[in-house]
Amino acid sequence: MAMASVRIRQAEEGDCGNILKLIRELAEYEKLSDQVKISEEALRADGFGENPFYCCLVAELLPAPGEPQGPCVVVGYGLYYFTYSTWKGRNVYLEDIYVKPEYRGQGIGSKIIKKVAEVGLERGCSQLRLTVLDWNKGAMDLYKALGARDLTEAEGWHSFRFEEEAMRELAGK
Amino acid sequence: MAMASVRIRQAEEGDCGNILKLIRELAEYEKLSDQVKISEEALRADGFGENPFYCCLVAELLPAPGEPQGPCVVVGYGLYYFTYSTWKGRNVYLEDIYVKPEYRGQGIGSKIIKKVAEVGLERGCSQLRLTVLDWNKGAMDLYKALGARDLTEAEGWHSFRFEEEAMRELAGK
Repeated sequence: MAMASVRIRQAEEGDCGNILKLIRELAEYEKLSDQVKISEEALRADGFGENPFYCCLVAELLPAPGEPQGPCVVVGYGLYYFTYSTWKGRNVYLEDIYVKPEYRGQGIGSKIIKKVAEVGLERGCSQLRLTVLDWNKGAMDLYKALGARDLTEAEGWHSFRFEEEAMRELAGK
Repeated sequence: MAMASVRIRQAEEGDCGNILKLIRELAEYEKLSDQVKISEEALRADGFGENPFYCCLVAELLPAPGEPQGPCVVVGYGLYYFTYSTWKGRNVYLEDIYVKPEYRGQGIGSKIIKKVAEVGLERGCSQLRLTVLDWNKGAMDLYKALGARDLTEAEGWHSFRFEEEAMRELAGK
């Protein structure tokens, strides 16, 4: 079987159903799928309205020449947004990156990261950041091989989170 | 001396000079001041144009009644932006929070965090996140006391960063 070629493109609103399926697969892989509360409606509203909260890339398989030219199959995604460093200015943050297990080892993940770097540079960003679980050694090794530094290891940065209940407590609501 | 009262308000473009001074003080406190490359011009352009990359709160001292009513002194800031969780949707992220040492112990930092929680809830965010250096035990204890969870400790999340050079390498530029 010839290897299908893969296209990385910006997601459209109609991709949200496929993206949500992949979000759930990624959370299962991370053993944290009970935490997924997002809906397709929220993904549509938050990514494709005015002042979107995120941007998303999808990786899709292009049918080989001679194959039936149906809708392309989405096999991965990278969801990112722009953040800000008071030391360096504009940053791009890669929140999620995922490729379906049966399509790994073809460099699709690297293609997604490269595209995020490209988009970030176009928007004047000087850093690309992401967060990874420490037991996910394959991912950590890939990011390091691609040139990233582990800031938690190197400088001791810890991520903290207030959940909604704690936020309401704080805001007195 | 009567304790001056403190007002937390959204920063305006004219505050960028004061904010930059405080950014530098915070970086010195974090022992990472060699990393500060930001300029006042960048802060103005990135926070106060169309589609701003960040929002900022400032804490200012109000003159006591009977005192000369000059410009208020800015003694702290909190810089935040909106991010996105594919599990929970809209998030607010507190990038920096700082209060000048001589004004600590009056609850100004907590007031800033509370205001960020309030603004986040108004915008439909269900999480408030931040990152802290592991040796900064005072800050870690404060955030925990206010209801935050250390996700690096609890779940093993590590922060990774690609610097601009690594981004250019990735993007092939």
